Amino acid sequence: MKAGVIGATGYAGQQLVGLLNNHPEVEIEYLCSHSFEGTEFSKVYGYFEKDVDMVCIGLEEALEKAPNLDVLFLALPHGKSTEIVNQLKDTGVKIIDFGGDFRMNNVETVKTWYDIEHQDGDFLKQVVYGLPEINKSSIAKAKIVANPGCYPTASILGLLPIIDAPFINKKSIIIDAKSGITGAGRKATLANSYCENNENFKAYSVAAHRHTPEIEEVLSEQAGEAIVLTFTPHLVPMHRGILATIYCQVTEAINPEAVLSLYQNFYKEAPFVRVTEGLPETKKVSRTNYCDISIKYDVRTGKLIVITAIDNLIKGAAGQAVQNMNLMMGYPETMGLTANNYYL
Amino acid sequence: MKAGVIGATGYAGQQLVGLLNNHPEVEIEYLCSHSFEGTEFSKVYGYFEKDVDMVCIGLEEALEKAPNLDVLFLALPHGKSTEIVNQLKDTGVKIIDFGGDFRMNNVETVKTWYDIEHQDGDFLKQVVYGLPEINKSSIAKAKIVANPGCYPTASILGLLPIIDAPFINKKSIIIDAKSGITGAGRKATLANSYCENNENFKAYSVAAHRHTPEIEEVLSEQAGEAIVLTFTPHLVPMHRGILATIYCQVTEAINPEAVLSLYQNFYKEAPFVRVTEGLPETKKVSRTNYCDISIKYDVRTGKLIVITAIDNLIKGAAGQAVQNMNLMMGYPETMGLTANNYYL
Amino acid sequence: MKAGVIGATGYAGQQLVGLLNNHPEVEIEYLCSHSFEGTEFSKVYGYFEKDVDMVCIGLEEALEKAPNLDVLFLALPHGKSTEIVNQLKDTGVKIIDFGGDFRMNNVETVKTWYDIEHQDGDFLKQVVYGLPEINKSSIAKAKIVANPGCYPTASILGLLPIIDAPFINKKSIIIDAKSGITGAGRKATLANSYCENNENFKAYSVAAHRHTPEIEEVLSEQAGEAIVLTFTPHLVPMHRGILATIYCQVTEAINPEAVLSLYQNFYKEAPFVRVTEGLPETKKVSRTNYCDISIKYDVRTGKLIVITAIDNLIKGAAGQAVQNMNLMMGYPETMGLTANNYYL
Amino acid sequence: MKAGVIGATGYAGQQLVGLLNNHPEVEIEYLCSHSFEGTEFSKVYGYFEKDVDMVCIGLEEALEKAPNLDVLFLALPHGKSTEIVNQLKDTGVKIIDFGGDFRMNNVETVKTWYDIEHQDGDFLKQVVYGLPEINKSSIAKAKIVANPGCYPTASILGLLPIIDAPFINKKSIIIDAKSGITGAGRKATLANSYCENNENFKAYSVAAHRHTPEIEEVLSEQAGEAIVLTFTPHLVPMHRGILATIYCQVTEAINPEAVLSLYQNFYKEAPFVRVTEGLPETKKVSRTNYCDISIKYDVRTGKLIVITAIDNLIKGAAGQAVQNMNLMMGYPETMGLTANNYYL
Repeated sequence: MKAGVIGATGYAGQQLVGLLNNHPEVEIEYLCSHSFEGTEFSKVYGYFEKDVDMVCIGLEEALEKAPNLDVLFLALPHGKSTEIVNQLKDTGVKIIDFGGDFRMNNVETVKTWYDIEHQDGDFLKQVVYGLPEINKSSIAKAKIVANPGCYPTASILGLLPIIDAPFINKKSIIIDAKSGITGAGRKATLANSYCENNENFKAYSVAAHRHTPEIEEVLSEQAGEAIVLTFTPHLVPMHRGILATIYCQVTEAINPEAVLSLYQNFYKEAPFVRVTEGLPETKKVSRTNYCDISIKYDVRTGKLIVITAIDNLIKGAAGQAVQNMNLMMGYPETMGLTANNYYL
Repeated sequence: MKAGVIGATGYAGQQLVGLLNNHPEVEIEYLCSHSFEGTEFSKVYGYFEKDVDMVCIGLEEALEKAPNLDVLFLALPHGKSTEIVNQLKDTGVKIIDFGGDFRMNNVETVKTWYDIEHQDGDFLKQVVYGLPEINKSSIAKAKIVANPGCYPTASILGLLPIIDAPFINKKSIIIDAKSGITGAGRKATLANSYCENNENFKAYSVAAHRHTPEIEEVLSEQAGEAIVLTFTPHLVPMHRGILATIYCQVTEAINPEAVLSLYQNFYKEAPFVRVTEGLPETKKVSRTNYCDISIKYDVRTGKLIVITAIDNLIKGAAGQAVQNMNLMMGYPETMGLTANNYYL
Repeated sequence: MKAGVIGATGYAGQQLVGLLNNHPEVEIEYLCSHSFEGTEFSKVYGYFEKDVDMVCIGLEEALEKAPNLDVLFLALPHGKSTEIVNQLKDTGVKIIDFGGDFRMNNVETVKTWYDIEHQDGDFLKQVVYGLPEINKSSIAKAKIVANPGCYPTASILGLLPIIDAPFINKKSIIIDAKSGITGAGRKATLANSYCENNENFKAYSVAAHRHTPEIEEVLSEQAGEAIVLTFTPHLVPMHRGILATIYCQVTEAINPEAVLSLYQNFYKEAPFVRVTEGLPETKKVSRTNYCDISIKYDVRTGKLIVITAIDNLIKGAAGQAVQNMNLMMGYPETMGLTANNYYL
Repeated sequence: MKAGVIGATGYAGQQLVGLLNNHPEVEIEYLCSHSFEGTEFSKVYGYFEKDVDMVCIGLEEALEKAPNLDVLFLALPHGKSTEIVNQLKDTGVKIIDFGGDFRMNNVETVKTWYDIEHQDGDFLKQVVYGLPEINKSSIAKAKIVANPGCYPTASILGLLPIIDAPFINKKSIIIDAKSGITGAGRKATLANSYCENNENFKAYSVAAHRHTPEIEEVLSEQAGEAIVLTFTPHLVPMHRGILATIYCQVTEAINPEAVLSLYQNFYKEAPFVRVTEGLPETKKVSRTNYCDISIKYDVRTGKLIVITAIDNLIKGAAGQAVQNMNLMMGYPETMGLTANNYYL
């Protein structure tokens, strides 16, 4: 199959290139980069010298060639994919979009949180949310998939098995999430600089992060009622990984072992979810497509504590995109995603 | 004045030596170390060569000389100070203890969480909890002060102004705390190794950390009712700093500006608390005795979010101990604690 | 083919397990660990849950089963493999040894630098030094291969093309090498602790590191004369990677472009050496089996400066071992070593 | 005394503000920042809230007020101070300049390496090079002092005691230096970003760094003959610190203990140099004004290896500037520079 990548030189795009390059069924047709049009990809990332030998093309050429692809990946900043998708939606190419533009169903929500105006609300609803753990069959049939955000992936997977459970107070949910610095992307800003991040830990976008409505919409649909929750992101001085510590008030005494079974059952067909006894750590999922989940019950306060860990660039971006591509193309779900070699 | 330090070669002890060495009123009488008895302190920490020229003495000699000191600092692991304090409590020396042994008033609680058996419950109640923001006058008169834990300092300071407020649901409090690796001390363990901590983020002791009852006891006393809360510590790959993200459900709509004023008022006489508009970051308090606090209100969910930051080794240990010493000796509270030079 | 690993739970061993697990031709027959006999490998490294499902066996069982293997890897501390190799050398199993025990040909040198007594000097000489860039055909025929040290790999590859060049002063060579902390292994020591290494940079074993004679012996053989050189290792606060900055005094004016061609020519058949125009960086080779090399000429002082970078755990250990295995088994040299996905 | 700082919001400037703020004799008259004119200094660096309460002024105002100062510090990028110094040189204010503009005596050298055109070569020669270990008495009388570069400080201090020794081959000197990331300053560039520096180690400006002629000029003057040497800088993923590994070929067998004595003697009056037995580490001098030096002799190759460590922002910039100010003002050399509290 033939794949193209628009936005290949961002951090998520670059990880995707690495995964696609090793995928047994994929032939990369082109890499497109606005900033590096005409430059060899391996000059932007010396890492890939001898491995990926392609010159980045510009957007115009990429769009022109898109109809001949099987799958096109858009790894662009939020707001940049709306127009591209609208332009290509009636050609044969399947699209997997990394941005927030098409993740939510509601035109108003997208306008409020992202300042993106979708003209066609019906089309927005047809885009499939690419979380295989709930939407596997729709993804398989989808023409356009919105790849989930990194925080939403870690948050939603932690809450899915209990979001409609009677013992959870639906108004009590708090997600305290922590991410490595790659989550902020590759912009040359003071905020992204080594000296401002190293040996520092901080919260940001408190009660105001754009991933909040995405988490809420998916969970509301699963719960069958409106879920409103508190989400607080933090920055950790490390490259990769998200750990989410999720708190739910229980409405009655619970048996933690029964809840554990519930999780194990829920995910028994999910190849990339590991319900673990030990506490998740970001290093244990680093450079893998796994989401690790464990639960603890604070019997003194009646809080169920769910801890999840993913790699924000893999299960939270490029890996999940490949997982979606596998489903869309009819390949085994795990194809090209199992070379987990590097604990350190 | 003459000061002695028992446990001088642990990380908290070593920071204390640095602060005492630069304190204008202090003469360090001795440094005691079980592991390094007979070794020059500056051979253990080459950092101090030319600055601190003392040979570590053993415990027996330290105890013998203790009665001639003005203040003795015990920077020992939990459980190690009970016997020493009992032995010295009727001599003239004032004692500031870094361990958990004497922080709580209740013999049972200490037994349950620390496995320490205090014979004399009345004496335990006489030990003053060394948090100057609430106990300034008792500290000034105290003979024995229990220096607060690092997490409790960050947690309690964040909650004190609102713990008896009518608009807070007292059963809803969650403290999600994150600490640098120095918090784990200087033991040679695999858990403390570089390769297991670098580029990793994890929770630990979930719903089971010993600092929980300490936080609860102090807050309960302030609130005038029993406070039971959820406390979750995490490890951040960096040397120093604690950031606590604290969640409280409100029982009625609040005006965040009024709450901010309440905080500013509460701490208007506290030289080391900064109620800030910007979000706290551990780097902003690194190597200072400050506790930074800011508040956010998640109006969508009715959560008051309080974020605090301290340096775990300074306001969370050695700096707070010096602040307590200043109060006990009648010096200005900030003496020896204002050389804040190093943002990076 | 069937492979066994003795020393599977050290850092190099664990990386090898990851690589072997993804190698298309390898079936891992057993993982042996002295410290974790009877424990599931994925309990030691939670990272491998769902991927590697094996219980570590003890040494006795491993040795008993060794003759049924095709290849046995020994990823043990120096001095531990001598006895094992001697015991197995007449069985059919091919052995790849990670330790220093068999890397040098000279019984005296091994005794002096490693305090290991080899009884059989002739046998020592038969062990092949597993650096494919010089010994490809001998490795292909070898029964026992000594996998090179990490520093020697980075150093020797940087010097091979010029070690017999007339324009190099053979007495002037200085190798200033820098390594990430994984190079020190997985021992629970204060020296390995996070707080002693983070935000620190230092030299160690100055003019006394055991890798010096290994580098000298290999280069001497290539040069046809005795090479004695200065080697200084340093520790960098990061997980992985070695960068070697190598200085040679030239004896006559040189044309750096001609020297560059010489390097390109020398390595034109070496799939894992990249002679680069840009300066090597450890991140550019991280988690790959590549050695990047570039040269600079300081015309003001007549110094040829060669800079090389490898990943100490891959080209410097586990990856090179797999490369050797491929050669010994007649597989393509790069098999199982090309999944280079992770720049960050 | 009254001090002003132009360039207060860069990393070196900010460290200087911290030191001056704690100096017992200094009153900071103003902080000037081009980028942050009109902004409170403590809004740029939240770290200083409650400690430094000043609004940054612009350059015009700063220059106007300069004549009323005792000392003006210029902490500006290279090339920015030439004009300011020329404008103020005939007023009464003493100036300490952090840039490279006035460090060298030779108009040609400055032009070649910095592209700065000095009109007045005689004036350039009158500016005193602010390395107290050689120029103490000239600094005491100087009106304008050029504060040494960070690499030159670490390099020159390591070589001074032997640069005129008969046993050193003067053509053989190699300085392999490694610096933390603060050395690159506070610019918002991709090169300075966290994700490009964390977990990475690299050389840069090989055989081409601007600090080379500065080192050579100072050493040549001391040696009484032209010194030409090789200097290679590297970047270490950490905030602070420089370690220089210096290699000299000896021309005859030496007694390392005699050389050690030579160093101890040379620096016996230097309060901020520590000739140490143990190997220097950047952490041992972090946030201090010390330069640690140790020597090793590689008897096998006849190389004398000198290792030095400094904090690039303190002895390599702001601390050395305060040391120079102390000398210029007749204060004790160490005043305001001895609060060394923070090993970690």
